[in-house]
Amino acid sequence: MTQKKNKQTTPPRRQFLEQLGGIGGSAAVYQAMVAMGLLVPGDSKAATNKANWQEKAALFASGPKPSVAVLGAGIAGLCVAYELKKAGFPVTVIEPRDRPGGRSHTLRAGSVLQETDSQQVCGFASGEDMYFNAGPARISQHHANLLNYCSELNVPLQAFVNDNRGAYIHSASAFGGKPVRAREVIAAMRGNISQLLAKSLNAGALDDEFTAGERAFVLAVLKDHGALNDFFQFTGTTRGGLAARSGGLSPDVPATPLERNDVMLDANIAFVPSFVESYNQAATMMQPVGGMDRIAYAFAEQLQAEIFYGAEVSGIFRTGTGVRIEGRTATEQGALETDYVVVTIPPSVLRDIPNDFSPGIQTAIEQTQYANPTKIAFQSPRFWEKEEQIYGGISWTDSDILQIWYPSGGFGQDQGILVGSYLFGGGNATNFGNLSPSARIELALTAGEKVHSQYRANLSQGISVAWSKVPYSLGGWATSNPSPLLLEPDGPFLFAGDHLTYLRGWQEGAVISALNALSKLADAAT
Amino acid sequence: MTQKKNKQTTPPRRQFLEQLGGIGGSAAVYQAMVAMGLLVPGDSKAATNKANWQEKAALFASGPKPSVAVLGAGIAGLCVAYELKKAGFPVTVIEPRDRPGGRSHTLRAGSVLQETDSQQVCGFASGEDMYFNAGPARISQHHANLLNYCSELNVPLQAFVNDNRGAYIHSASAFGGKPVRAREVIAAMRGNISQLLAKSLNAGALDDEFTAGERAFVLAVLKDHGALNDFFQFTGTTRGGLAARSGGLSPDVPATPLERNDVMLDANIAFVPSFVESYNQAATMMQPVGGMDRIAYAFAEQLQAEIFYGAEVSGIFRTGTGVRIEGRTATEQGALETDYVVVTIPPSVLRDIPNDFSPGIQTAIEQTQYANPTKIAFQSPRFWEKEEQIYGGISWTDSDILQIWYPSGGFGQDQGILVGSYLFGGGNATNFGNLSPSARIELALTAGEKVHSQYRANLSQGISVAWSKVPYSLGGWATSNPSPLLLEPDGPFLFAGDHLTYLRGWQEGAVISALNALSKLADAAT
Repeated sequence: MTQKKNKQTTPPRRQFLEQLGGIGGSAAVYQAMVAMGLLVPGDSKAATNKANWQEKAALFASGPKPSVAVLGAGIAGLCVAYELKKAGFPVTVIEPRDRPGGRSHTLRAGSVLQETDSQQVCGFASGEDMYFNAGPARISQHHANLLNYCSELNVPLQAFVNDNRGAYIHSASAFGGKPVRAREVIAAMRGNISQLLAKSLNAGALDDEFTAGERAFVLAVLKDHGALNDFFQFTGTTRGGLAARSGGLSPDVPATPLERNDVMLDANIAFVPSFVESYNQAATMMQPVGGMDRIAYAFAEQLQAEIFYGAEVSGIFRTGTGVRIEGRTATEQGALETDYVVVTIPPSVLRDIPNDFSPGIQTAIEQTQYANPTKIAFQSPRFWEKEEQIYGGISWTDSDILQIWYPSGGFGQDQGILVGSYLFGGGNATNFGNLSPSARIELALTAGEKVHSQYRANLSQGISVAWSKVPYSLGGWATSNPSPLLLEPDGPFLFAGDHLTYLRGWQEGAVISALNALSKLADAAT
Repeated sequence: MTQKKNKQTTPPRRQFLEQLGGIGGSAAVYQAMVAMGLLVPGDSKAATNKANWQEKAALFASGPKPSVAVLGAGIAGLCVAYELKKAGFPVTVIEPRDRPGGRSHTLRAGSVLQETDSQQVCGFASGEDMYFNAGPARISQHHANLLNYCSELNVPLQAFVNDNRGAYIHSASAFGGKPVRAREVIAAMRGNISQLLAKSLNAGALDDEFTAGERAFVLAVLKDHGALNDFFQFTGTTRGGLAARSGGLSPDVPATPLERNDVMLDANIAFVPSFVESYNQAATMMQPVGGMDRIAYAFAEQLQAEIFYGAEVSGIFRTGTGVRIEGRTATEQGALETDYVVVTIPPSVLRDIPNDFSPGIQTAIEQTQYANPTKIAFQSPRFWEKEEQIYGGISWTDSDILQIWYPSGGFGQDQGILVGSYLFGGGNATNFGNLSPSARIELALTAGEKVHSQYRANLSQGISVAWSKVPYSLGGWATSNPSPLLLEPDGPFLFAGDHLTYLRGWQEGAVISALNALSKLADAAT
């Protein structure tokens, strides 16, 4: 909470909290934050962890401080190292890749995507908006801990369009197999649900729920909710779109609504509009301008002397007073001894690195299960904007590709990067990942042209990722619940990473885990 | 469709259309566009008007062309003049203000807001995102004609957050008078509606609608739609937010849902989530980066020799062969004679300018009714982002201010511009407009602090607009239906402006009207 003193204005509340932090300790700060409504539900432990870290780290003042190794320069490791350096702790980050960010990998012209059995070089044209976030690609507005760092590190953000009523929903078994606009599905679903409930109310089926007086109010709500007519019937609404040749110079005429049974009998269709209702997916979603890795690079810029790239960890052992990290670069082997280590290497990789963690920790790491998400992206003229009036958002299809993402940046430009498929995991993702890069392109084009007939004539430079095959990641995110053991120090060993949290796969989870490690480190060292 | 030849890539379809335009005329182009799905419902006439204008304008080739005066440098006038100049027609734009854009007025540091009885100077700090769109502030993704010009004129666009589930809904008569998050209201509304309908289904109240087999599918849809439990009951969902101290390092626990009767018996509450379902308000919405007037200035940059600012029209008369425009600047009077005039002056002002329009036209202008919208904006540290996790969007309140808008640009910066009220018209807007600028500030602070307790400590530099009191506008937008008479030439007189369309108050309406005027002008002149 105290990192922005060089900025123009400090809001009065923050000043107050800084004063409290100086005199009352973290508990007083926490209670004040709760009283002022400053704590986000779900982030309460992160806030107290951050306060505890800052308070205890300050106790070291200018005296000697324990040395810390951080294994991995993903978001968790970067956050830990950044805070340690800011507090004056000697810190060394060991990162096997040649870049920061880990799974937060943004591909642009010339980027290399390495898998265990293939290597792809990104052939996109250059341009600020010509990127593909191969890993995390969205930030929820209540991911406050991550967003605080974006603000602190001056990472410009823009809205990420997660919910676009002009995007398509496509199902082989509904709407005659033709893609329809999300607005059509949502309008028809709300309309039919409202009409059916109004009918039940008027038939007396819910007289035990509402009085006659209340019923009139409920009917008024349903009329608005579903865009019903005066007889509480759904006969179409301009919410679902306009009929051809209406609107503009002529009065608006609602498009013919979708068939009731297409929207009311298929839970797969109903899932799509519900997806963006979920807590972590609902508006407002955001992204850094120019690519998700801007966050990782902003951290790394503060750690230029501290991060060793291209160094792979080959052993993590106790020394009695601290830890010994063994490792190798392409040309040499070496070891580093520090007082503590914060291990952010994902369990999918960590389980194969020799270590003398406690048996419970080893078991927790061994048992962590992983999702195997896949993605593919293409460069293309923005036909979806100019010909189909789709600006950002996601089309869904029940075919092998599941999703098509339209870019949320660079609206109106000629060229853009289209995500041609995003599979969260499961069998389709396994199949996709098992294909060669060129076969993945063919699969994405074949499935995608059922949604957009312009596909083959426009898409090029396909590049894909199967996270289970990416060295040093070997998976997308943990699917098993986090082990509480990893939240506590195991002697000189501490752990961090989104897999320690219930925000698995989210960068906010990585930051929350980092703040936990810092707090526990401070407790252990003081 | 032919304006982008200097751009990098021309999609194949466009090339095809250009070829068709060369050999088959606009009807062939139109039919081809329909067949290819390139026409937006609602814009079909705009597309044919644009094609007709381009085809007929080309017939003049390098020969003499009729001269045209354009009255008003708002979006309609700018669009007409831009196309005329591009086709080589002599054009003169007369604009009484010292800037282009008309109602598309963006206020920044030093901007002057003139009303009939007051003048305000904007005291905001400087910065790209430190602006207030006093007029239009959002663009729908299907406003394709306006967006085509944004692309053609290289106006960068970004997503405008119209729907934010973290913004507040505040009603004196619901939720104990406390502001609640939109996500809470929406989750409770979907949950209760789904539960009630499931109960009706299970009670047999809708057996005439669905077979027993279908009923199971409908129930599955409702379970997903409302986030119901396995017994089809709504007991809360994380869609509505998390309970305090859950999430992150701990499992997610749903927040206690809002009371059923607060969301099911009040159509005013139900209206808010429905607002962003409407065709012109649903995602994706957009805005130019840096302020809405970037569009007007991009047009005006192409018309530097053609626009005469500070010149007020005092008469519009026929000459027998064309028109005579009488006018005055601050220092002199003058007249201009041209073959045609395109009048974009709003009826609220035009009705008082001497003219010899046909009686039917005069009556249509006289009878046009106007909304009197008001807005106010403040500079403030972004407490809504850092303390309340609100990034963009709109909070609604049943108090005198109706809406609070959070900026969609500059996320994470220290300072931002908050719209403290937007009233579309009616009694509240009349009352607001009748207040002095300082009294409006006090009203906005008093009402707004019921939603945000931080208001008074943070907000400054309040600046407001009552469009009915702005010279040369005298109103926000037409509320009466457009007269078809204004779409046709009245001898040498043609008309344009959003008031000619069913997109009243939208810049897309202005552009559509401009394309109509151009088409009719081309018909008359060839």
